[in-house]
Amino acid sequence: MSITAPKGFVAAGLAAGIKASGALDLALLATDDASAVPTAATFTTNLAAAAPVQVSRDHLERSGGRASGVLVSSGNANAATGAPGRDDASSMCALAASGLGVPIEHVLVCSTGLIGIPLPMQPIEAGIPVLVTARSGSEKAARDAAAGILTTDSARKEVLVETPSFAVAGMAKGAGMLAPNMATMLAFLTTDAAIEPRPLADLLRIAVRDSFNSMSVDGCTSTNDTVVLMASGRAGVGDPNVVVDRVTEACVSLAGQMVADAEGASKIVQIRVTGAQSDGEAHAAARKVADSLLVKCSLNGGDPYWGRVASELGSAGVAFDMDRLAIAYGGVVVCREGVALEHDGAAVAEHLAGSLIDIHCQLGLADGNGVVMGVDLGYGYIDENRTTS
Amino acid sequence: MSITAPKGFVAAGLAAGIKASGALDLALLATDDASAVPTAATFTTNLAAAAPVQVSRDHLERSGGRASGVLVSSGNANAATGAPGRDDASSMCALAASGLGVPIEHVLVCSTGLIGIPLPMQPIEAGIPVLVTARSGSEKAARDAAAGILTTDSARKEVLVETPSFAVAGMAKGAGMLAPNMATMLAFLTTDAAIEPRPLADLLRIAVRDSFNSMSVDGCTSTNDTVVLMASGRAGVGDPNVVVDRVTEACVSLAGQMVADAEGASKIVQIRVTGAQSDGEAHAAARKVADSLLVKCSLNGGDPYWGRVASELGSAGVAFDMDRLAIAYGGVVVCREGVALEHDGAAVAEHLAGSLIDIHCQLGLADGNGVVMGVDLGYGYIDENRTTS
Repeated sequence: MSITAPKGFVAAGLAAGIKASGALDLALLATDDASAVPTAATFTTNLAAAAPVQVSRDHLERSGGRASGVLVSSGNANAATGAPGRDDASSMCALAASGLGVPIEHVLVCSTGLIGIPLPMQPIEAGIPVLVTARSGSEKAARDAAAGILTTDSARKEVLVETPSFAVAGMAKGAGMLAPNMATMLAFLTTDAAIEPRPLADLLRIAVRDSFNSMSVDGCTSTNDTVVLMASGRAGVGDPNVVVDRVTEACVSLAGQMVADAEGASKIVQIRVTGAQSDGEAHAAARKVADSLLVKCSLNGGDPYWGRVASELGSAGVAFDMDRLAIAYGGVVVCREGVALEHDGAAVAEHLAGSLIDIHCQLGLADGNGVVMGVDLGYGYIDENRTTS
Repeated sequence: MSITAPKGFVAAGLAAGIKASGALDLALLATDDASAVPTAATFTTNLAAAAPVQVSRDHLERSGGRASGVLVSSGNANAATGAPGRDDASSMCALAASGLGVPIEHVLVCSTGLIGIPLPMQPIEAGIPVLVTARSGSEKAARDAAAGILTTDSARKEVLVETPSFAVAGMAKGAGMLAPNMATMLAFLTTDAAIEPRPLADLLRIAVRDSFNSMSVDGCTSTNDTVVLMASGRAGVGDPNVVVDRVTEACVSLAGQMVADAEGASKIVQIRVTGAQSDGEAHAAARKVADSLLVKCSLNGGDPYWGRVASELGSAGVAFDMDRLAIAYGGVVVCREGVALEHDGAAVAEHLAGSLIDIHCQLGLADGNGVVMGVDLGYGYIDENRTTS
């Protein structure tokens, strides 16, 4: 379980002093020889995108999809910080680039934490050279990096997918859509497969669609969401069609770890929509159900009232015919052709009492399928988010 | 405060036995001479629209925007009930029409309550003739009608707007987007102004846009939402430009009563967005903020963390430039040009401790304005909605 397991990567983590708690709050992921390798990234679509998102997007564009390293700070999002925030993000890249001996555009930067507060640059400036020096391929260095990107997470989120010919590793922090107090979802992946920047970007887009973009805790799109994938090419092989499946597998694992760690949630729900007009419409409908306050409350209470699910599907903005709708909880069909169906109520109650709920909505229109992972809504979410401190 | 105050209307309310509690659950609003008067209605956009919505929409179309009466039942939504549900809704109209001595298409029908359960037709069929006989222009009859449409509301919601030349009255129930356990928002308005069906429909659309459609408790669009406006013409006057303002005034009052009665809410928030690219974009942005789980939680806790508001604006799908954004809580500017502004923290804390919160977001782009009323999210909402019973 190490971000440095694929050949060609080193990492480091440090308690620089951004977090008052003294926890690790600065991390570096880099190639072991400072070479700029094919690197793809997906960023938040939020128009209030944070300074590091703006800077990283720019660097990746200027470098033609190549990077030598990613610097990550946690505890402060460097969002809503204006031009000074952009200068701070650039300075972080410049310092790391200088340490690594590479051009500034070969370093990406991510931050996670509270919005609207200037970054404490003094500890960060002092920490970066220490971090650069400490970087290594050791298990401990990788663990420190995985810890250094966390905020309210209860544990490190890591994954390693190994194949006979190449490996994919990842680390993530599950805030943002999941544990939104800190307003950020970050994930970093490495592989030693050999893939050029353009196909790498294509496959990351697919992997993200089927993992991070298929989960929702509160429907909030944060200002800092970033997923980065670096490919060292050291394994010498790289059929994108093979690699995409392994990268997706790694992303799904990290997304699952995030949902499982969602603050204040007691249940995970999998909303499966089939029979939609298209995959896109199925996904939109599943997300509408997963994001519904009423549905989330009913999951918290283990309530089998499927009328709420039907109502959300009807207002999801996708093709819908009530008379063709079927709904099943844990495989037990409770609604068919849009009306209540006699069913085993005890079986539904038992399924709803569990911690992993499956709701299947068959729209009966065409072949579009989609799945979204969500969570219930209980007191815990409110407790966690009613105040910032 | 009587739905029968405008000249030409009678009403009645009855405990027919739909609700196990024995509370009033059947209501009738009709013209005093059974004449079919210009009538406009707006219905839910939910594609899982309930049977009574489908039937009423059809009747209004067939009658060319005229009706003699509206029958309302509470305790069961007659939604997700398929073809039998549509037959039940038609039977209700037929019975009322027969009692009033009018064609079936001159009667509209609304139901509110749980989804997916067949209507108990026996008590309804027994109750309708009693209701028809009981109809009158008395205060008590109007009160009974206003009570007969309620579900989880804590009190009747009524309004009367009088002018020297005409009057507008209304009654409503505040479920649906507000107290969504029962999944319905219903409002009925009468006026003795003289307005033809087409301008009546136009003015109702405007009034609804600026009242009911400018509030949100949980972003859920119910299967039964309906607003009906009947115009008897007895006052003899009817400049639509004058009447629209009074109808809007009545609708705003009823919407305000709904928000104030929102289940589980402790605070009302007014999100004002100015400087948007258009009024439509301002409204969409205000709604995104009002519906945000993170913002709603922070209101519950009286937390002044404006970063959440900025993040929601950035992901609202409207034109947005972070560097032009200003945010004020209760008139105290906390963010200007997209970054934190030194401000009187005690004044903000005091404002947030109150029960009516004002958040003003100035996007700084153009002249588009919009306001959405919302509520906080606390334990009460979860308690109310985690189980159906």
